[in-house]
Amino acid sequence: MSHGKQFTLYMHTLGPNGWKIAFALAELGLTYEPIYLDFRKGEQKKPEFTQYNPNGRIPAVIDHHNDDFVVWESAAILTYLVETYDPEHKISVSDPKEKIIQLQWLSFQISGQGPYYGQAIWFQKWHHEQFPSAVERYQKETLRVLGVLESVLSKQEWLVGGKMTIADIAFVPWNTCAAPQILKDYNGFDFVKDFPSVFAWHEKIMSRPAIKEVWAVEQSLNQ
Amino acid sequence: MSHGKQFTLYMHTLGPNGWKIAFALAELGLTYEPIYLDFRKGEQKKPEFTQYNPNGRIPAVIDHHNDDFVVWESAAILTYLVETYDPEHKISVSDPKEKIIQLQWLSFQISGQGPYYGQAIWFQKWHHEQFPSAVERYQKETLRVLGVLESVLSKQEWLVGGKMTIADIAFVPWNTCAAPQILKDYNGFDFVKDFPSVFAWHEKIMSRPAIKEVWAVEQSLNQ
Repeated sequence: MSHGKQFTLYMHTLGPNGWKIAFALAELGLTYEPIYLDFRKGEQKKPEFTQYNPNGRIPAVIDHHNDDFVVWESAAILTYLVETYDPEHKISVSDPKEKIIQLQWLSFQISGQGPYYGQAIWFQKWHHEQFPSAVERYQKETLRVLGVLESVLSKQEWLVGGKMTIADIAFVPWNTCAAPQILKDYNGFDFVKDFPSVFAWHEKIMSRPAIKEVWAVEQSLNQ
Repeated sequence: MSHGKQFTLYMHTLGPNGWKIAFALAELGLTYEPIYLDFRKGEQKKPEFTQYNPNGRIPAVIDHHNDDFVVWESAAILTYLVETYDPEHKISVSDPKEKIIQLQWLSFQISGQGPYYGQAIWFQKWHHEQFPSAVERYQKETLRVLGVLESVLSKQEWLVGGKMTIADIAFVPWNTCAAPQILKDYNGFDFVKDFPSVFAWHEKIMSRPAIKEVWAVEQSLNQ
């Protein structure tokens, strides 16, 4: 690659899942060149991209310092980054049991938060028919996920290991969608009042310099 | 626990995600006591279970030979089992890069296969209104997932490492639903003809003695 950065990061300006990876790369001080695929042109389904990711979805990374190793699926990418480039455990745990719990929360994020929040937005914004009861199903699921997080974070500051890890970071991009979009106008939903521990945790992550810097890019791209 | 087995495995007679764990435990020769939660009674949301899994979903395991260590989320459980009890790598890889690819496919299974197949069944069987275009959305997503697998498995026998691993095993329970249920009557869908490599791979896994034995239990419970 001619860009000279360590990683190529395939992502999308709006898609939440690429931003998780950008957050972790920034926290670890690793350089990367973002390539924002244009979904309107179907770039994520073209051979230039599917040669790397046969699933045709973002994110995917190429590590040019490790024989152009390719990984897709955000939980696998985040795990790869910390196992390879976080020997001091700045944003990861080291104890074997805690590593499994870190993976448990990453798994809940990709299987429990992402798909359901994503379906809420699909039926709110993109589906060609209006199905209020489908929208409501996924709004309720969004509230349920926030409730699971609240039940844990009301008793501990971070999901695992007593410090911020990739498990916490992974929830941030989708949670920025929850209040402003999915639950707007939903029975007086109030993120701060209804889920105070989740909100405080979210804000704490968003206030970190590396995260703020990355998020300023997201904001500038999506004005 | 008084049952004397190494693991307690919380699962559901029909829910695909518990059977993945039963498969891996059987392949590794580990003993377990299955507890089939009754969803009609809401047992998965009661404190007896949510004390272990605040997400209120199956599967979850307790390892009584490791200080009653509790893990939930199937990808994390499968990873725990092989990292702790598969030193000979019977159903797992050992190379660090291959371990990441193993996790990549596990991630695709829990975020790409499970949730979408699950939504198809929801709108086909359980939603209180009929939404044909919602059913079709998830039928198409099921076909898309099968297509991703076919594109890879037409070129290689297994997903990673040249042998059967937890990454392959994880796809089996949901794929047993695909043909008979989600895609029944869908434009002449024919699993064997449309996705020959996926079908052959699926059958190969299902023919293993340990898997067959576990699946016979599933069949007997769901007659």
